[in-house]
Amino acid sequence: MSDVQHQPLWIADLARIVGERAIVLPGHEDFEKYTQDETENLRFCPQAVIRPENAIQIQQLVRLAEREHLPLVPRGGGTGLSGGALATRGGIVLSLERLNRILEIDEQNFFVTVEPGVITQTLQEAVEEKGLFYPPDPASRGSCTIGGNIAENAGGPRALKYGVTKDYVYGLKVVLSGGELATFGGKRLKDVSGYNMPQLFVGSEGTLGVVTEITLKLIALPRYRRTLLAPFDSIERAAAAVPDIMARGVLPCALEFLEQDCLKAIEAHRSMHVRFSDRAAVLLIEVDGNHETALDAEIEIIAEVLENFSAADCFIAETTAQQTEIWDLRRSAGEAVKSICAYKEEDTVVPRSRLPELVLGVHEICSRWGLRVICYGHAGDGNIHCNLLKSGLSDEKWEHELPEAISEIFRLTVSLGGTISGEHGIGHVQRRYLPIALSPAEIGVEQRLKTALDPLGIFNPGKALPD
Amino acid sequence: MSDVQHQPLWIADLARIVGERAIVLPGHEDFEKYTQDETENLRFCPQAVIRPENAIQIQQLVRLAEREHLPLVPRGGGTGLSGGALATRGGIVLSLERLNRILEIDEQNFFVTVEPGVITQTLQEAVEEKGLFYPPDPASRGSCTIGGNIAENAGGPRALKYGVTKDYVYGLKVVLSGGELATFGGKRLKDVSGYNMPQLFVGSEGTLGVVTEITLKLIALPRYRRTLLAPFDSIERAAAAVPDIMARGVLPCALEFLEQDCLKAIEAHRSMHVRFSDRAAVLLIEVDGNHETALDAEIEIIAEVLENFSAADCFIAETTAQQTEIWDLRRSAGEAVKSICAYKEEDTVVPRSRLPELVLGVHEICSRWGLRVICYGHAGDGNIHCNLLKSGLSDEKWEHELPEAISEIFRLTVSLGGTISGEHGIGHVQRRYLPIALSPAEIGVEQRLKTALDPLGIFNPGKALPD
Repeated sequence: MSDVQHQPLWIADLARIVGERAIVLPGHEDFEKYTQDETENLRFCPQAVIRPENAIQIQQLVRLAEREHLPLVPRGGGTGLSGGALATRGGIVLSLERLNRILEIDEQNFFVTVEPGVITQTLQEAVEEKGLFYPPDPASRGSCTIGGNIAENAGGPRALKYGVTKDYVYGLKVVLSGGELATFGGKRLKDVSGYNMPQLFVGSEGTLGVVTEITLKLIALPRYRRTLLAPFDSIERAAAAVPDIMARGVLPCALEFLEQDCLKAIEAHRSMHVRFSDRAAVLLIEVDGNHETALDAEIEIIAEVLENFSAADCFIAETTAQQTEIWDLRRSAGEAVKSICAYKEEDTVVPRSRLPELVLGVHEICSRWGLRVICYGHAGDGNIHCNLLKSGLSDEKWEHELPEAISEIFRLTVSLGGTISGEHGIGHVQRRYLPIALSPAEIGVEQRLKTALDPLGIFNPGKALPD
Repeated sequence: MSDVQHQPLWIADLARIVGERAIVLPGHEDFEKYTQDETENLRFCPQAVIRPENAIQIQQLVRLAEREHLPLVPRGGGTGLSGGALATRGGIVLSLERLNRILEIDEQNFFVTVEPGVITQTLQEAVEEKGLFYPPDPASRGSCTIGGNIAENAGGPRALKYGVTKDYVYGLKVVLSGGELATFGGKRLKDVSGYNMPQLFVGSEGTLGVVTEITLKLIALPRYRRTLLAPFDSIERAAAAVPDIMARGVLPCALEFLEQDCLKAIEAHRSMHVRFSDRAAVLLIEVDGNHETALDAEIEIIAEVLENFSAADCFIAETTAQQTEIWDLRRSAGEAVKSICAYKEEDTVVPRSRLPELVLGVHEICSRWGLRVICYGHAGDGNIHCNLLKSGLSDEKWEHELPEAISEIFRLTVSLGGTISGEHGIGHVQRRYLPIALSPAEIGVEQRLKTALDPLGIFNPGKALPD
């Protein structure tokens, strides 16, 4: 702490609750990282950052924030892509990084109980050591936290077969308005005792309370997987193969799409040749399970479908190293595309059969606005990340016309039965577009919900919903 | 309509909205069935029953109910087990039986869109004809409706592998307070655009609005299944085998438990010999999938586990007829037990490793109160239906002491990490016990939620939550 004479009076109260060392004020060497996340080009300064270490401190913080009418902005790993963890209205950033214990891995009942600050990959590896599996696998798994995953209902490539974060959240402890600590759900596969409260908090972006403990369902770790990369001569064909694979009764654990410009961006970024970068698009397909013969049979079915789409010359990984090569390719897509120039990423999602219309439509819209666009993502889920690149556009056009182009993309998405965010959330940057997806009545009822749970408006105000 | 001179004035308004033929008043030959459901021994008369045929009529009905401060009680197939569809405070029973169309089976995207009055089995069969699968399978599937399943978050025996109703609900149209028709979610596997509203309505027992259209996720229909019945020499051993099977990486699609008294009740009810009725308990175990060799391997693993629990002499169905025999046994459990005498069914759920403690504890409690109890249910989910039988108890003891015994059972359940309803709901009859499972703060936040969405208190008042 420094510069005591200019501090608001409540800073002293903060110190009494969490101790001085748990407070980061402007000027502190750690302060800067809390002003940003991984959303493009945003920076917002809170009045203070606090790093409490238990739920009791958080209960006291909530009471303080309510008394002082201070925004309280929960923050996990700071990897968000919609500005959800930024103090857009000042106040206090509540970093949950010190609540990072794995409390229990219950091998009999297939549940894990953790604090919100646990890094997702740490959680995955801890349960895999016991032969268990936590499938949600966001790209940022090495640095994002499970609390942040719950705030944004994180997805990733395994969602097609295994679902997203919400499908694993069975119990939550939450500090509510008034500082009450509530327990919703638990280690129960079935529960209709009261409303489905855990699900109300999943995807709520910290706007309804502060999650302090999480119980997640696990499944048995599948023993084997088969991975292949299939090249296509057109985006339409790649997209059209997706529902055909599913219709044959095969449920891949990953069905990812990358278009040629994305492959070329990876090639440039990594200064190496990338397989199939001369083709219009590729699908990365993976199946998993406990029976190798069953997986071989599924790969055969997939190969048959691919042949129908002139993609017979696919690359089937024969070794773990080749599987890693394929996944490295996929995982480097985001960084490669973002390294080209200023960009804006949109997280469109549609029913998977509408993918060709979405991808071609997005290209058409962008070309009309003079934007370059690169698409990749989770084809099986119909969840495509569209990266709009500034390229040669003037700053003025970029600033003023980009929102128009994005609105057009979202109107297209919604007209195809989709919505404006599949896994990145609304946060700060997508709020203005929400009325494209939801009617005034639909937004109104969510606002009433917010007010009922957060009457003083301290929990991450200015996020998730329009004002 | 009859007896016009004694009718409230709003009956004429009802008639203007839905037409006279869609109104059932006391005295009408159909009226009686709407005063009951399948909960033991309840009867409540509404002032009127209406059978609208579309969402527009329901919007008008909600406005009328709000204007007249009339309870509006949504009703599906009337198969509920907690009195959720009964007009405990008078008002209007809103039967959704005429909203019974299957609107779309989307074979490309694996979704089905239906009206709430569709019978669950009708829905299952319609999608199975297309090679698709809607797994939730409540015992009452032949007469319950999908709308009722959503109200109670229905489960059934396949939940262990495939989840419960909530896991399939991706989109809802709901008439809200004010008569607004809102659309939440849709045919999207990922969606974080606003709060997770569909999940708020699942399990809410009609207390937040009236669902008028439902979009459910489907999966590919598994091609093969293997079914077996395993006899055990003690309840503890049967219950203890359950987590061991799961720990071996096998995820059965059903793992059901019946104790000896239940087998004997079936024997008496069906006047026929029942397999293994001389043993302390049986487990019904089923695995399914697309690869017969994989299923055979799983059956082998299960047989190994059973051997460890001295249950090697299991009966493995070799034909479809034998599978049917096993399932007929399981499906007749409820009716057989209920035909013995006056009873009260409790829907306990715990983490599955706590099953032995639950079942033995329930027996101990019941024996202390002089009650007979028969337990059966979904062992894999830890969801056991405990049927308390009046047997030789006096009416007075039955009436006054039963709630005490039930409270004890629920306190035990909660102490084991469980809760008071897994799939039957709180409805009317379990409200008094909810404080055993939830704290005042937890109930309070749910009440605030209810008030935010239903400020005039017309949607199924007196259900789901204490007043």
